[in-house]
Amino acid sequence: MAQAPRETEASDAGSFRFKPYDGNDIQYPGFGFDIQFQDSKSRARVGKLKTPHGTIETPNFIFCGTKANIKSLQPQQVKEAGADIVLANTYHLMIQPGADIVEKMGGLHEFMQWDGPILTDSGGFQIYSMGDGTDADEIKGRNNKTERARSLNKITEKGASFRSYKDGSKLFLSPESAMEIQRKLGPDFVVQLDECTAMHVSREYTEKSMHMSHRWGDRSLKAFEKTHDGKQAVYGVVQGGVYQDLREESAAYTASRPFFGTALGGTFGGNFDQFFEIVSWCMPNLAQERPVHLLGIGTFKDVFECVRLGIDTFDCVSPTRIARHGWALMKGAPGERLNLRNAKYKEDKEPLWPELGIPASANYSKAYLHHLIRAGEHLGGQIIAQHNIAVFAHLMKEIRKAIQNDTLDALQKEWLVE
Amino acid sequence: MAQAPRETEASDAGSFRFKPYDGNDIQYPGFGFDIQFQDSKSRARVGKLKTPHGTIETPNFIFCGTKANIKSLQPQQVKEAGADIVLANTYHLMIQPGADIVEKMGGLHEFMQWDGPILTDSGGFQIYSMGDGTDADEIKGRNNKTERARSLNKITEKGASFRSYKDGSKLFLSPESAMEIQRKLGPDFVVQLDECTAMHVSREYTEKSMHMSHRWGDRSLKAFEKTHDGKQAVYGVVQGGVYQDLREESAAYTASRPFFGTALGGTFGGNFDQFFEIVSWCMPNLAQERPVHLLGIGTFKDVFECVRLGIDTFDCVSPTRIARHGWALMKGAPGERLNLRNAKYKEDKEPLWPELGIPASANYSKAYLHHLIRAGEHLGGQIIAQHNIAVFAHLMKEIRKAIQNDTLDALQKEWLVE
Repeated sequence: MAQAPRETEASDAGSFRFKPYDGNDIQYPGFGFDIQFQDSKSRARVGKLKTPHGTIETPNFIFCGTKANIKSLQPQQVKEAGADIVLANTYHLMIQPGADIVEKMGGLHEFMQWDGPILTDSGGFQIYSMGDGTDADEIKGRNNKTERARSLNKITEKGASFRSYKDGSKLFLSPESAMEIQRKLGPDFVVQLDECTAMHVSREYTEKSMHMSHRWGDRSLKAFEKTHDGKQAVYGVVQGGVYQDLREESAAYTASRPFFGTALGGTFGGNFDQFFEIVSWCMPNLAQERPVHLLGIGTFKDVFECVRLGIDTFDCVSPTRIARHGWALMKGAPGERLNLRNAKYKEDKEPLWPELGIPASANYSKAYLHHLIRAGEHLGGQIIAQHNIAVFAHLMKEIRKAIQNDTLDALQKEWLVE
Repeated sequence: MAQAPRETEASDAGSFRFKPYDGNDIQYPGFGFDIQFQDSKSRARVGKLKTPHGTIETPNFIFCGTKANIKSLQPQQVKEAGADIVLANTYHLMIQPGADIVEKMGGLHEFMQWDGPILTDSGGFQIYSMGDGTDADEIKGRNNKTERARSLNKITEKGASFRSYKDGSKLFLSPESAMEIQRKLGPDFVVQLDECTAMHVSREYTEKSMHMSHRWGDRSLKAFEKTHDGKQAVYGVVQGGVYQDLREESAAYTASRPFFGTALGGTFGGNFDQFFEIVSWCMPNLAQERPVHLLGIGTFKDVFECVRLGIDTFDCVSPTRIARHGWALMKGAPGERLNLRNAKYKEDKEPLWPELGIPASANYSKAYLHHLIRAGEHLGGQIIAQHNIAVFAHLMKEIRKAIQNDTLDALQKEWLVE
């Protein structure tokens, strides 16, 4: 596996170009992050992340409920599978049903009947994926490329203008309105608005954009503070593309600001090694005592390697998305998953993974799931989605134990086949 | 409400043209039907229907699991909603995944992980719906009208030939193979192959077809008996279209044969009054001690009126089908349901029906379900499907109680608004 460069802790904001924060300090009384165990050989750590909706153990995985639901699963099924925390997308919810409706209905927890912690993103990723036309159909919840072209946005210092995926109407998101919308949505964790730059953009653009994202970060904090009632905590976002000095600067920027947590965003390059390198550049420069979230990343391999780099939480649509195509996550499987559409499962009486202890993994034969997927029955995707969540929840549990028992290498060999 | 014509019991086979059965009598040791209460003012009755997979109370509703699954619901969700018995379609399963696969996988109960009673139909309805091109897309599980045209069938004395909905290949179903396929599928209740004639066909055709269905009934019984191992019980089907003497003859035919139960099939005319009349013609001529199933019928009104005529079980795709369009069944609602797509539910904080006691009916606001349906999220249909099953299960429970308490009229007024 890849080796993390072990640099000196470099959280000296003075060596970077950004100014000290000119706003007020922010306290997060209902929140906390206690690092309970720190690995001696890597940055890996086991922690407890406290929120008004319960305390979760880290490292952990945040499951995607884009439009205020984990696709095809009722919240008790998500909980049954072992999920501790879910994510919803600001971009989607501001358009449908609208933040005001969610607020009137009592906020996301009440609306979607999920009583555990929730994180919303800022909408920033969607600005990126629409602007660059890169492949992010899944997180946008649609596949119509013609539609996408219409929604191309304009990003200025003020914020981002774009068109609604629903009716093409003009919309505008500023750092302030992103905070306001997330306040109305009411998750535990909110994220500052950023511009999420792509891999192929120039260093010059990346740097200018990053500095704007930093200014947006300060505006987000100030907007957040104005209505801060202790129910939410805000994450800053590290940008800086594929450039080491920019990533370091952006990481140090977040550390210098009163964010509760840090999220790593933007492009992570074109392959695993570059991804690993970029995350490695960020980590030593972050505020070490804060929880670190890695946005939109989620293979077993990513998780194992990034846990070693000190990542505390992950999110990815993959577990539920691939389920709809008949892919069941599996420890030690080539490609980390089984393709249940494959004819070889036609008469396979074995369930997916009895030890996971939920009906989705223990009761149905692979032959039955193969049948449902082949017959185009949504139940197939539902069962596999629940299984995939259970697999990731189990993985995170095993990882937490392995960090403390110094058996992470052995565990990784069980999960990943080279 | 409509009044059932109260005729003299007419189960004198001698007055009809069919011959006595020339096969052996058939015993159904693992099965039973005990009428526990008989209403004095109507044919309504409360019974216990015993199967190798448990005893269910009647009147009851059989929920449709066409392709060996209740669409979008895991079996424990179906059970949680209060369903006692489900139905699967021979036509669909013989094509995908194939009866041999289901048999190898241990039969339908094991395959779909439903441990309660199961009924499979004979495939006869699909022969009808394909042959006449009438609107039965739901039960056929697809919507492609071009596809349908290709599958037009030919029905002869031997059986029915048709084309696979999957790949267009030629298939043939005879009374014997329908029994053999259902034996392999392994439900508790199997149904004889019949030709399901439509409303607009001539009396001459209807009569000829009915007589053939009777001959098919005899062949079905003989085929059934050959491999009868006590695990299944067979239903005969009453045909005869919209013609009183034919319906009476067909009812008497089934009574004269060693079927375990009787199913009423075919067309029930063009409106409620004609439907009610047709069912009324059949009832006095059936074997009274046997359970009576009404194929493919399922509004609240149908159920209330037909329970009075002596129907013991119903099935209909409607509860789960309409759920996908956002329609939630509701006691006392105009049209028996709420259209949750309607903008009036946009900010409706109330759940559907808290007293039903399942999360689907008690936890989610109508506003949330409205959002899910509008956003095209499958979870909306899933939640409403579970609610709709709970409503029908609750209705049947209330009906059983009301028959015994002589309060059926009052109950009907609660459920139906004129």
